[in-house]
Amino acid sequence: MGSENRAPVTVVGLGSMGSALANAFLEKGHPTTVWNRSPEKAEALVAKGAVSAATVAEAIAASKLVVVCVLDYRAMREIVDSLGDAPAGRVIVNLTSGTPEEARQTAAWAAERGVGYLDGAIMATPPMIGSEHALIFYGGPKAVYDEHASALASIAGAGTYLGEDAGLPSLYDVALLGMMWTTWSGFMHSLALVGSEKVKAESFLPFAQLWFEHVVAPEIPKIAEQVDRGTYPDGGSALGMQAVAVEHLVDATRAQNVDVALPEFLLDRAERAIKQGHAGDGFAAIYEVLRKPQS
Amino acid sequence: MGSENRAPVTVVGLGSMGSALANAFLEKGHPTTVWNRSPEKAEALVAKGAVSAATVAEAIAASKLVVVCVLDYRAMREIVDSLGDAPAGRVIVNLTSGTPEEARQTAAWAAERGVGYLDGAIMATPPMIGSEHALIFYGGPKAVYDEHASALASIAGAGTYLGEDAGLPSLYDVALLGMMWTTWSGFMHSLALVGSEKVKAESFLPFAQLWFEHVVAPEIPKIAEQVDRGTYPDGGSALGMQAVAVEHLVDATRAQNVDVALPEFLLDRAERAIKQGHAGDGFAAIYEVLRKPQS
Ligand SMILES: NC(=O)c1ccc[n+]([C@@H]2O[C@H](COP(=O)([O-])OP(=O)(O)OC[C@H]3O[C@@H](n4cnc5c(N)ncnc54)[C@H](OP(=O)(O)O)[C@@H]3O)[C@@H](O)[C@H]2O)c1
Ligand SMILES: NC(=O)c1ccc[n+]([C@@H]2O[C@H](COP(=O)([O-])OP(=O)(O)OC[C@H]3O[C@@H](n4cnc5c(N)ncnc54)[C@H](OP(=O)(O)O)[C@@H]3O)[C@@H](O)[C@H]2O)c1
Repeated sequence: MGSENRAPVTVVGLGSMGSALANAFLEKGHPTTVWNRSPEKAEALVAKGAVSAATVAEAIAASKLVVVCVLDYRAMREIVDSLGDAPAGRVIVNLTSGTPEEARQTAAWAAERGVGYLDGAIMATPPMIGSEHALIFYGGPKAVYDEHASALASIAGAGTYLGEDAGLPSLYDVALLGMMWTTWSGFMHSLALVGSEKVKAESFLPFAQLWFEHVVAPEIPKIAEQVDRGTYPDGGSALGMQAVAVEHLVDATRAQNVDVALPEFLLDRAERAIKQGHAGDGFAAIYEVLRKPQS
Repeated sequence: MGSENRAPVTVVGLGSMGSALANAFLEKGHPTTVWNRSPEKAEALVAKGAVSAATVAEAIAASKLVVVCVLDYRAMREIVDSLGDAPAGRVIVNLTSGTPEEARQTAAWAAERGVGYLDGAIMATPPMIGSEHALIFYGGPKAVYDEHASALASIAGAGTYLGEDAGLPSLYDVALLGMMWTTWSGFMHSLALVGSEKVKAESFLPFAQLWFEHVVAPEIPKIAEQVDRGTYPDGGSALGMQAVAVEHLVDATRAQNVDVALPEFLLDRAERAIKQGHAGDGFAAIYEVLRKPQS
C-alpha cells in the first residue's frame, strides 16, 4: 500500500516489542520515525525505510502519533519528562506494560500537558504484531482513539477500545495474564501430584486435555453468567459436596509430599463461601469471596 | 443385548451415582442385584428388573462382581466389615471417592481377607454413566481388571486401567479436579478484577475464551514436555520478565480491592523459582517449586 495514504508515526523504544511495532508500521506503509536510548537498535529499521531521529525531541516532532513501548512507566515518564512542552498537541499511545494505577496517573499527567493520551496493553508476542489476530486493548478519550484507530490497526488487527478509563487496558491485561498463570500453575500442580508416583506428564496429558475441553472450559461461560446475575445455582453439585473433594485434594497433596499452598487456598476460599451461606450453591459462589480482600 | 451374555453384578449404594451405575448395568443386560442402607432407593431399579437384596450379605452372595459406591471410605468399610468372611472370593470394585491413601489402605484390607479389589474414580456425572465417553479410572491387580473389564465397560465406555497401585485412580481424580478448580478460580479472579470497574463478566468473557484457546491451552502440552525433560527453555519470555508482570497483577489486585491471595501465591512461587536460578528459564520452571513441600 502506498505510504501517501498512511499517517506518519513515531515509535519510541526499540526493544523486541518496539522493533516489532515499528516494523509493522513500515510494512503497512507508514512514514516511520524511530528512537531508542541505545541508537544501534534503530539500524535494522532504517534499512527497511525508517528515519532514525537523533533525539527524542526530534522523534516526537516528526509525527502527531507517537507510540511508546519501553521497559516500564518510569522509563516512559523519564523519556517524555525530559522534553518540557514539546509533546503538547501530540498523541502518545503508551504500549508499555504496567498497572491500571500507573496508566491513570500517566493519563492525568498527559492531560495537564495538553498531550493526547491513549493507554494500551499488548496481548501478543512480537512475532504476532502486525497480524489480523493480534490483540491490543486501548483506553482513553474516544475521540482520540477514533482519530488514530486506522493507523493503530497496522500493528494489531484486533485492536479493541475499552472505554475512557486509561486504566482498563492494564486491568484486562493483568486479568488475562493472571488467569493464564493460574491455569498453568493448576496444571503443573496436577503434574506434580501424578509425578510423585512417577507418572510421566506425557501419560497424564491426554486426560488433562480431554478434561479441559469437555469439563473445565464448558463451565466458563456459565460461571460468567452466574457472576453477572449474582446467583450461583448448584447444577447438581453443591459447594458443600465439592469441598469434601477439595479436602481429598489437600490430603493427597500433603501425603504425596507436594506443595500444598494452592489446594489450601482453594479449600480455604470454599470454606469461607460455605460460612457465608453458599453450601448449597454451585462452585461459582466462591466469587463472592474472591471479589473482596480477605484477611 | 440378552442378559445371558452378561455377568451378574451387585451394586451396593444407591445414591445418585450408585443408582446411575445400577441403571447402566440393567440397561446393558446384566442380572443386577442392588442394596442400599435406605431400602426405598432400590424401588425404581426393581421396577427396571433389578433384584433388591434384603441384606448386604445377600447382595454380595448374588454376584462375584460387587460395585460399591457410597458416601466415603468409612461408610464403605463399615458396610463390608459387618460381613466377616462373606466377601472372600468376591471382587469389590470400589467407586467411592477418597484419597490415594484411603484407597491403598482399603486394597491392603481387602487382600488380607482374600477379596479381589479394584479401586476406581468416576470422572463423570450420573447422567453420563453408561455412555461411551464416561471416564472411570481403575487401579489394582491387572488380572482382576482384565477379568471384569468387559462388565465394567457397561458403566463407562472410557474406563482406563492405570496400574497395580490402587491409589492411582484417586490421585488422578484429585489432580484433575484440582486443575479444574484452579482454572475456574483464576477465571473468577479475573472477573473480580474487571468487575471492580463495573465491567460485566459477559463483556470480558469473549476475550477470556480467545485467550484460553489461543494462548493458555496451546502451552499445556509444552509444559508437560518440559516437565518430563526437566528443562524449561524460555521460549522468548523468561520468568524474570514475567515476574514483573505478576507484580503488576498483585499491585492491581490490591489497588482494585480484590482478594490478593491467588496473585500473591503466583508471585511467591515465581520468586522462589528465580531464587533457585530459574530467572532465565520459562514459566514452567515453577514446577521445580510446586513439586516439593514449601514452608
Ligand atoms: N516482548 C513481549 O512479548 C511483550 C508482550 C506484551 C507487552 N510487552 C511490554 O512491552 C514493553 C517493552 O517490552 P520489550 O519486550 O520490547 O522489552 P525489551 O526488549 O527489554 O526492551 C526494553 C526497551 O525499553 C528501553 N528502556 C528501558 N529503560 C529505559 C530508560 N530508562 N530510558 C529509555 N529507554 C529505556 C530499552 O532501551 P535500550 O535498548 O536502550 O535498553 C528498550 O528499548 C514492556 O513494558 C513489556 O512488558 C512485551
Ligand atoms: N454424584 C456425582 O456427580 C459423583 C461423581 C463422581 C464421584 N462421585 C462419588 O460417588 C460416591 C457416591 O456419590 P453420590 O452422588 O451417589 O452420593 P449420594 O447421592 O449422597 O449417596 C450417598 C450414598 O452413600 C450411602 N451411605 C452414606 N453413609 C452410609 C453408611 N454409613 N452406610 C451405608 N451407606 C451409606 C447412602 O445411603 P442412604 O441412601 O441410606 O443415605 C447413599 O446410598 C461419593 O463418594 C461421590 O464422591 C459422585
